[in-house]
Amino acid sequence: MDDAINLAEKLAQFSTYWAPRVVAQLNNYDVMVVKVQGEFVRHTHDDTDDFFLVLEGRLTLRLPDREVVLQPGELFVVPRGVPHQPFAEEETHLLLIEPTGTPNTGDPTTAAPRVTL
Amino acid sequence: MDDAINLAEKLAQFSTYWAPRVVAQLNNYDVMVVKVQGEFVRHTHDDTDDFFLVLEGRLTLRLPDREVVLQPGELFVVPRGVPHQPFAEEETHLLLIEPTGTPNTGDPTTAAPRVTL
Repeated sequence: MDDAINLAEKLAQFSTYWAPRVVAQLNNYDVMVVKVQGEFVRHTHDDTDDFFLVLEGRLTLRLPDREVVLQPGELFVVPRGVPHQPFAEEETHLLLIEPTGTPNTGDPTTAAPRVTL
Repeated sequence: MDDAINLAEKLAQFSTYWAPRVVAQLNNYDVMVVKVQGEFVRHTHDDTDDFFLVLEGRLTLRLPDREVVLQPGELFVVPRGVPHQPFAEEETHLLLIEPTGTPNTGDPTTAAPRVTL
């Protein structure tokens, strides 16, 4: 069993954007931290909701009908089946939770590998 | 679909300790905030891991073999089947994630109701 997982310490261990690192496991879900900047691919998860919590910075989730802007301490769950494009003007740090094996681009052929820290 | 969920705003809406409020749904999981102070009942979830993230304050998780102390920005997942007793000397604010219907005491007869904010 691990000890306390310090999210800032985990985030300090890498610098690549849009490359989530698994920091814990919750049943069959991966708990991940990720650094993002710029525009990610618009994508959809047909089989799962998608959890975003901003730890630092500012994240915009472009949804079909509007944009949701998240500041530190704010979260949003994109419902399954809803296309979304994450965007961050400046470097932004997120906590993500998704079922293990969920492709971060919505497409297994283009997904980042799941790396555990 | 909701807008950004601000955890501090949600926490400002109630003051009762050990009474989680559901702020979002992630598939069949409840995403909750809770205020705690003092000692909770030692309990076990046989069917699920238990996710704790400290937002403010300090949480001690008393495990069978040791204590895990969590500061803001630190998380811990108690594996299923492991007895744990949460303790907070001062008022502490947590983000919790558990499958919907999980009794917070490990026992449906003594569990706090799941209230949505």
